[in-house]
Amino acid sequence: MAHEIQADQAVATARFGDRVAEAVERKRSQLLVGLDPRPDLLPVELRGDAHLGREHAADAFARFCRGLVDAVAPYVVGVKPQLAFFEALGADGMRAFEEVCAYARSAELLVVADGKRGDVSSTARAYAAAYLERAEERPPLADALTVNPYLGRDAVEPFLAACRRDGGGIFCVLKTSNAGSADVQDLVLSDGRPLWHEVARLVREWGEDLVGEHGLSSVGVVVGATHPRAIGEARRALPQSILLLPGVGAQGATPADVARAFASGPASALVNVSRSVIYAYRVEGGDWRSAAGAEAARVRRDVWAVAGW
Amino acid sequence: MAHEIQADQAVATARFGDRVAEAVERKRSQLLVGLDPRPDLLPVELRGDAHLGREHAADAFARFCRGLVDAVAPYVVGVKPQLAFFEALGADGMRAFEEVCAYARSAELLVVADGKRGDVSSTARAYAAAYLERAEERPPLADALTVNPYLGRDAVEPFLAACRRDGGGIFCVLKTSNAGSADVQDLVLSDGRPLWHEVARLVREWGEDLVGEHGLSSVGVVVGATHPRAIGEARRALPQSILLLPGVGAQGATPADVARAFASGPASALVNVSRSVIYAYRVEGGDWRSAAGAEAARVRRDVWAVAGW
Repeated sequence: MAHEIQADQAVATARFGDRVAEAVERKRSQLLVGLDPRPDLLPVELRGDAHLGREHAADAFARFCRGLVDAVAPYVVGVKPQLAFFEALGADGMRAFEEVCAYARSAELLVVADGKRGDVSSTARAYAAAYLERAEERPPLADALTVNPYLGRDAVEPFLAACRRDGGGIFCVLKTSNAGSADVQDLVLSDGRPLWHEVARLVREWGEDLVGEHGLSSVGVVVGATHPRAIGEARRALPQSILLLPGVGAQGATPADVARAFASGPASALVNVSRSVIYAYRVEGGDWRSAAGAEAARVRRDVWAVAGW
Repeated sequence: MAHEIQADQAVATARFGDRVAEAVERKRSQLLVGLDPRPDLLPVELRGDAHLGREHAADAFARFCRGLVDAVAPYVVGVKPQLAFFEALGADGMRAFEEVCAYARSAELLVVADGKRGDVSSTARAYAAAYLERAEERPPLADALTVNPYLGRDAVEPFLAACRRDGGGIFCVLKTSNAGSADVQDLVLSDGRPLWHEVARLVREWGEDLVGEHGLSSVGVVVGATHPRAIGEARRALPQSILLLPGVGAQGATPADVARAFASGPASALVNVSRSVIYAYRVEGGDWRSAAGAEAARVRRDVWAVAGW
């Protein structure tokens, strides 16, 4: 019993960068699987229930995501549930979200809640409490949260405080995978740099005092794998940040596109794959769990190979 | 019955700008009250329950917000529930959020869900479904949603599509009330303008084909009332957008600071007041409902006077 309490406290106080580094080493994987449940894409055996109302749809989401966790757990360091898909089912969806987060953590996977949250500080404190803070009787819902940096330092500070206290991390949205990312993120500043380079400089400052023993900060960034050149630039601008790289698979990027992200070490980048893993059964046929597991195993191997560690 | 259905469809298809214009005219008010329930600030009669766990705290939130809706309804055009505070109580909190939104709508108030959401298009579609779209058996949860523009046009498009179809609106975060808003929003572009001026130009484009009969677009912006000069600049850059102005009251801005926001008409700006109304009883004493109602009546009158219509 005393042993259990000690282990629990050790997990809680370790810095997020160290937790990622240890998970990557232990699993020999830099893969996250994105949990993006959508009613119209669920396996037939689950889809039947999902049309009976939100409560049933949320149950179907939870069963789908638990099945995915079981299937991909050997091959991934964590999962990235996308809050929007759960929120689309309202409170029932959020109940499923909580269940899925707890299930993934019980499978010893890191949970990156993908919510792109961000607001003024009194509000950001509530978001930090929702996702990154230990409450009396429960551990933090997630290990990390994606955060939007548009509101500046004081809006991010409550998340940093939560990371300091409870060992979580954040990934600031830096340069996203979509075409429209150019509209704002690529705007040219008076010194000739694109806007997102200045956001990278700010993120480096924000994460400076949260660097763990493995040299990785609790403050990472999201960079779309669809922009290979941006990955190299982000790597140089943020040598101690973990790069979270969505866009491999359905969005068109390949493992080769992300190779340079690993220049700061084997755990210095995490590749997220969502649709091409979780809906692999729609292409490959067969059991949806087996198809997801096989695809996760394949991507994990390819990413590990290009990372070159 | 036929009449009811027609009325319902009329509400659904009217443009958001027209719905705001009609509400402002009917209520003679440009005030929104922000619903920011926090366990530690609840009236004592509700706080007792809130410490018995999340379900009880969520019930207390719902009772608090319903009481506030009753108290301020005569003086406001709508309410702006802040999602973060509800999310901090997890699925129980989201259940309370849904209940509060439905209650406010039944009191014929507009509901602006304050979530600052934003993500790539497939994900933004899920957020639009969550907050702005009519589902089979239910009306949209909210009339409008605050949105973060950092991901660009294609990430906003799903919200615009929802607004076109179901009559909702969005408020893009432009220049926020916090000090840290300078970090990113005020960055100087190569042509000498601050970044947020270019975001304003983008927002104008996004909202161009959603202008209603009253000349107001479904695409508005959030501008902190703590920056009076920015309000004037935003007004000129976005003559057809409704300016949502937080920051009056606890954050230090006064009704006089927002006067120029109304240059495009009596409904061309909405002033949001949160803490100084909903927690007025902590300063004024007495019944929390009466204190909130009295403060809302006072701010409504002051804003109406400076708007000068």
